[in-house]
Amino acid sequence: MANDQPPRPSRRGFLKAGSAAVAAGASLGATGVAQAALGKTPAHAADPTMAVEPFYGLHQGGIVTPQQSHTYVAALDLTTEKRDDVIALLRAWTDAAARLTQGATAGPLPTDAAAKTALADTKIDTQVETKADAKANDTAYSPTNAKAAPDSGDVLGLGPCGLTITFGFGPGLFTKDGKDRYGLASRRPAALVDLPRFNGDQLIAEKTGGDLFIQACANDQQVAFHAVRQLSRLASGVATMRWGQSGFLSGPRGQTPRNLMGFKDGTNNPSTAKPQLMNEFVWAGATADAPWMEGGTYTVVRRIRITLEHWDNTEVGFQEQVFGRHKYSGAPIGKKNEFDPVDLKEEDKDGNPVIPENSHVRLSNQASNNGAQILRRSYSYNEGTNFYIERWPPWRQETEYDAGLIFLAHQSDPRKGFIPINEKLAKFDMMNQFTTHVGSAIFAVPPGAKPGSYIGAGLFET
Amino acid sequence: MANDQPPRPSRRGFLKAGSAAVAAGASLGATGVAQAALGKTPAHAADPTMAVEPFYGLHQGGIVTPQQSHTYVAALDLTTEKRDDVIALLRAWTDAAARLTQGATAGPLPTDAAAKTALADTKIDTQVETKADAKANDTAYSPTNAKAAPDSGDVLGLGPCGLTITFGFGPGLFTKDGKDRYGLASRRPAALVDLPRFNGDQLIAEKTGGDLFIQACANDQQVAFHAVRQLSRLASGVATMRWGQSGFLSGPRGQTPRNLMGFKDGTNNPSTAKPQLMNEFVWAGATADAPWMEGGTYTVVRRIRITLEHWDNTEVGFQEQVFGRHKYSGAPIGKKNEFDPVDLKEEDKDGNPVIPENSHVRLSNQASNNGAQILRRSYSYNEGTNFYIERWPPWRQETEYDAGLIFLAHQSDPRKGFIPINEKLAKFDMMNQFTTHVGSAIFAVPPGAKPGSYIGAGLFET
Ligand code: HEM
Ligand code: HEM
Repeated sequence: MANDQPPRPSRRGFLKAGSAAVAAGASLGATGVAQAALGKTPAHAADPTMAVEPFYGLHQGGIVTPQQSHTYVAALDLTTEKRDDVIALLRAWTDAAARLTQGATAGPLPTDAAAKTALADTKIDTQVETKADAKANDTAYSPTNAKAAPDSGDVLGLGPCGLTITFGFGPGLFTKDGKDRYGLASRRPAALVDLPRFNGDQLIAEKTGGDLFIQACANDQQVAFHAVRQLSRLASGVATMRWGQSGFLSGPRGQTPRNLMGFKDGTNNPSTAKPQLMNEFVWAGATADAPWMEGGTYTVVRRIRITLEHWDNTEVGFQEQVFGRHKYSGAPIGKKNEFDPVDLKEEDKDGNPVIPENSHVRLSNQASNNGAQILRRSYSYNEGTNFYIERWPPWRQETEYDAGLIFLAHQSDPRKGFIPINEKLAKFDMMNQFTTHVGSAIFAVPPGAKPGSYIGAGLFET
Repeated sequence: MANDQPPRPSRRGFLKAGSAAVAAGASLGATGVAQAALGKTPAHAADPTMAVEPFYGLHQGGIVTPQQSHTYVAALDLTTEKRDDVIALLRAWTDAAARLTQGATAGPLPTDAAAKTALADTKIDTQVETKADAKANDTAYSPTNAKAAPDSGDVLGLGPCGLTITFGFGPGLFTKDGKDRYGLASRRPAALVDLPRFNGDQLIAEKTGGDLFIQACANDQQVAFHAVRQLSRLASGVATMRWGQSGFLSGPRGQTPRNLMGFKDGTNNPSTAKPQLMNEFVWAGATADAPWMEGGTYTVVRRIRITLEHWDNTEVGFQEQVFGRHKYSGAPIGKKNEFDPVDLKEEDKDGNPVIPENSHVRLSNQASNNGAQILRRSYSYNEGTNFYIERWPPWRQETEYDAGLIFLAHQSDPRKGFIPINEKLAKFDMMNQFTTHVGSAIFAVPPGAKPGSYIGAGLFET
């Protein structure tokens, strides 16, 4: 069987991928994917599987985009020594992401009669390749086996599902082990710090760090994973997967979803509907050290395991003290409604603070952090069970849920946002009894791309 | 802080749980949960989050129920020595499952004004406890901490989501390490065999086996997990989690969903709409050795990892040879439509079989297996990435997706169903190059319960 062994990665195959994808894009026709990818048909469809988010634009999607129900986040490590390989990868990623977000396959599928019939059913008329595509496909497309289809085909017919794809750059793109691999060291933004070790951190190396970041969010789990899977293939020979992680968010539509601890999560986020708040807290400005980051953001990812068994064994009243909010209504303690303001000054008749000293919302509220705010866009994760020997609680050494929060926060400067807030939380938060940070990463997320250009062009070309 | 350390499990607390749940059920009122749980309001609602499946009935739900979009399957090991503990657990599980499937909490929540307001919004009017409930709650309910709420509250407002909960009994309930722990050894059905080792099996002990089985399926990921989480709490002091596993299925509504390999999966299942097929292949009869299994079934679970990276690198034509079906249409090779019959006799002009000798569908088709059929009801799983050193392909030792198929098959007798079919597949299936069985379990799934009774009553009480 000729296919018993996959051929070794071929550099040539990869390097041509970018141009093949461009060729593919060009063949889609006036009403096809290409136009949609320009951002001309953004829509929050009533059917979440039919929602389409623009890919190109001032900012990348998936940051202030209303949160989709699922995510797959991943980090890759660059293995190449060549700057041009990195650029070619970013070009290929940009083109494929533009297609994917519009509900198309990562690249055109092979032509055959059965495929045509099948794909016609899916009502995505741009997915079967033209003769020109086929040629491009045969000669250029595909990272390793030139004849493998450029898309795994597992989400055919599922719809675009509001997919957004967000790319980011880790510290390792700029310098790794003291080496300036791609001549970018001098362009590393000061805000892209190496995160300090926080109190209680139990980081697992294989779930931490990464040179490149992909965040795919969609209203379907398989669609989110599918995107990362195709993009990761395009990196073959240039970068390898470091970690990947799927997440979900179950919320009644239009309401704040509850996390696995049973509390509404996201209530006191700065409003994405207020551009001045986003400019202040989320979007990076054109700093002298990194003008190319203007319109981008800095993203912190933390994999935070929650000992749900332990949490479930505590009383609701205690749980509310931990967060500083009521469980069922989501209101700040002592208040009635979810969106009532958090008043840290309020005291009970004995002069004790109504919102407890070491409660999560007191410690993380902007009034405790010099006015700092971050935009949280976290998801729950659930990876079955595992045997744990960990800090909290030390006497439990047994099979437990491997579930928790993929904490995702976007901010204009992590030195003012995540870092000081988490320093406080890591030391004092009552919630720490139930949570363990096991993964961590930080990325500079550049601004959006213009059609014809690619994500990160500003870093490489100005 | 009084809650710094969770109290040790209390046997007393658990044993009373069953009666508390009954008390709770009784207080729900004529239009409440209790009636719905009797199976009087089955409905496949247009909105999948509002779908309600009956809990009580001749058969358990989740077997011939149209497949929901998500599952959480789990196995527990019994730690108690007492038969009565097992019965009390099954009673508590039955009552809680009846509530949960109807969209209620596992037990009534604590009363407070904020909770009432919050829960009123969710439009599930049975979730706030009455005074009588509160008394039962305070004195009896809760496995370990008597004051912890009987429900984690994380799916409030999400709707019943078509939840089904299916319980099963592993070999260890009957005999474990040669011991007849609960006086049930003589009642073990012959069909509940210990699965043999199959060619290529790479089973991980912590993902294999189990004395008790819970399969929760729902149109929402968090709702499925929530059910197992509450049920597992009820087992505190009597059984511990052995493994848990979440799964999903993304399909355009009304079409056969594609698995992660990109092929439509489930096409050639025996039709659940044909009672005679279900009676022949799925439902167990009243055998002399296990009359209590009549109307039940036998369930095999296999966690099958797929090396997606390797698969994605093969050509579509080759992939079709592996399965014996066309990828995009799902039709048998050489045919046009998905539901065209699989004709194993067909030959090409050179006399070669059109559906290859070692293809998956040829080997598993009933014509190759003395007419045997099984009802597959599998889900995909996706647990991020892991570092692998495994059989296939041996030269890949790197971070790979920890994703694949939670194979779930129901059948009247695994000695005629799963075992012979998988013996053949394990030896000859071309797909084995891309798959590794890493988890395995078998369970006797008893018939459904009558209101007032409990799952498994026939085993313990006749
Ligand atoms: C498992 C981990 C965590 C859980 C379950 C969690 C949950 C919550 C919940 C339920 C709230 C209240 C509702 C809301 O305003 O969104 C909240 C607020 C907040 N959390 Fe977390 N959180 C976690 C970790 C973190 C971390 C690591 C940070 C940052 C370092 C953080 C920063 C914040 C901030 C800034 C707020 C808003 C506080 C306010 O202004 O009132 N959280 N979190
Ligand atoms: C990763 C593992 C597996 C995958 C991805 C897979 C996928 C598929 C696909 C795509 C089909 C064709 C469509 C259909 O009729 O449903 C199929 C058919 C089938 N599979 Fe599997 N399968 C897997 C493992 C197994 C195992 C372990 C068994 C049983 C031991 C099995 C038994 C069957 C049967 C009985 C059929 C129907 C064949 C026919 O009558 O045409 N499969 N499978």
